[in-house]
Amino acid sequence: MSGPAETIRDGGIPPEGPGAGTAPGKAFLTRLSACWSRSDSLVCVGLDPEIERFPRQIAEQPSPIFQFNKAIIDATADLVCAYKPQFAHYAAYEAEDQLERTIEYIHRAHGGVPVILDSKRGDIGNTAERYAIEAFERYGADAVTVNPYLGGDSLEPFLRREDRGVVVLCRTSNPGARDLQDLAIGDGGRRLYHVVAELAATRWNTRGNCMLVVGATYPQELAEIRAIVGDMPLLVPGVGAQGGDVAQVVRNGQTAAGTGLMVSSSRSILYASTGDDFASAARAATLSLRQQINAHRLQRA
Amino acid sequence: MSGPAETIRDGGIPPEGPGAGTAPGKAFLTRLSACWSRSDSLVCVGLDPEIERFPRQIAEQPSPIFQFNKAIIDATADLVCAYKPQFAHYAAYEAEDQLERTIEYIHRAHGGVPVILDSKRGDIGNTAERYAIEAFERYGADAVTVNPYLGGDSLEPFLRREDRGVVVLCRTSNPGARDLQDLAIGDGGRRLYHVVAELAATRWNTRGNCMLVVGATYPQELAEIRAIVGDMPLLVPGVGAQGGDVAQVVRNGQTAAGTGLMVSSSRSILYASTGDDFASAARAATLSLRQQINAHRLQRA
Repeated sequence: MSGPAETIRDGGIPPEGPGAGTAPGKAFLTRLSACWSRSDSLVCVGLDPEIERFPRQIAEQPSPIFQFNKAIIDATADLVCAYKPQFAHYAAYEAEDQLERTIEYIHRAHGGVPVILDSKRGDIGNTAERYAIEAFERYGADAVTVNPYLGGDSLEPFLRREDRGVVVLCRTSNPGARDLQDLAIGDGGRRLYHVVAELAATRWNTRGNCMLVVGATYPQELAEIRAIVGDMPLLVPGVGAQGGDVAQVVRNGQTAAGTGLMVSSSRSILYASTGDDFASAARAATLSLRQQINAHRLQRA
Repeated sequence: MSGPAETIRDGGIPPEGPGAGTAPGKAFLTRLSACWSRSDSLVCVGLDPEIERFPRQIAEQPSPIFQFNKAIIDATADLVCAYKPQFAHYAAYEAEDQLERTIEYIHRAHGGVPVILDSKRGDIGNTAERYAIEAFERYGADAVTVNPYLGGDSLEPFLRREDRGVVVLCRTSNPGARDLQDLAIGDGGRRLYHVVAELAATRWNTRGNCMLVVGATYPQELAEIRAIVGDMPLLVPGVGAQGGDVAQVVRNGQTAAGTGLMVSSSRSILYASTGDDFASAARAATLSLRQQINAHRLQRA
């Protein structure tokens, strides 16, 4: 046995690109832009499985998480610009295999819809390399969320995969975001999240594959960050269950082209119904969110 | 099927405590202190498997990572105050099962040596809950490393496990640590890592189970942080392969009792020899590091 890439290659996932159905080599932003147009949608569906909220018919099957996700994906794939599986929801169930199958299924059945692995990795040197292998080779994700606290060299192993996206936490949607992210830097009125946005727009984006996470619950901060980063795509969680206002998010976050956003919703789509009609209810909730968003877009291409 | 804790309980790991051999209910710091005394050591061995560096006889076995770790653990357990498996090194190999077995083995065969899962988790609300389940229930870790960027509410699901330790990144050992951690906060000369240390010593430590990560490569910062946090234990990676100076680390980081440190070394112990004598070479390297550290301790209890 040799290095991890080789080990994984033996396991059937080529280290050069994600599973079948994707377009390795094409830049993440190219794929995202195509998906914004094709779906006429800025909606990103978060795949955060909670088995206790699954309908019994799904929960009692083998691989219930994969079966649930597959039904959600098939019901929504034409309405979304991305999927975002949240790693912890798989790890707590010892269900990494079902995460692998979910991403593989999206690539195979709905090739072209990018997958953002939401694992908020952050580590140094050779360890960050391992996390890049985990996200891009093992799981075949098109993009991954990362934490900026350890600085630029901790992001570089992800950023150097030019065809993949790297989504850096900037201003998160939770109340505790204030503890560090809002701290005033120096005496010029800049805050820590401004510095992160500036670094993301400059030093970290030399390959055009850096993006940011900005919570929907702080629309003013979203406008400030948009002003710093130009047309950079922003992943915006926090509408739906967390209460972010869709109209404000779109007004403050969109680019001149009426895109630039991946507005992520998880629970209010996945668990729109906990009955046997969960997939059609998820479709209806996604349609509704797409419509709410589109009502405030400057343009739709 | 119901929630993840129940699912895991069915899998055999009780959610109330880690695997056999540990003392659930006892505070992490009590267990760590006992281990400092018993081993006369502040050495923490990082378990970062790199299969390409294993001797062939190990690499060709089934479960090579577990077999390698087991040999290292058996060769060093009386010489260490903790073990620290690094999550990415298992995830990149699709070897979560071998991580589970490694931690279970430490608890069973060398009960009393705490295990710190180095996964640098950081997420919000119900997702942070899932990560706490992952670390403490699924893997049975005694402590976990976490990232402070998302603020206090993102740490709370970990901190509320009173018998477990939570090790917050403060000043890391990599060059890029400067990008955010060294930023001046306000105009009073405080830096971001000072703020993290202050929060860790106050708001985040109401249950006495909060600790910090401080890189060995920045001994001056280590002294500053020690001055802020009193006797709080500090996990100090970066001696060995990363070049941190042991004497400076011990002088600047120890408490008046001559403890307060978990000095972590991985590669220079694990791969002290890549031949069949790797375990005895690891023991010799651990003994040597313990001795180097102990030469600079104020007291040994």
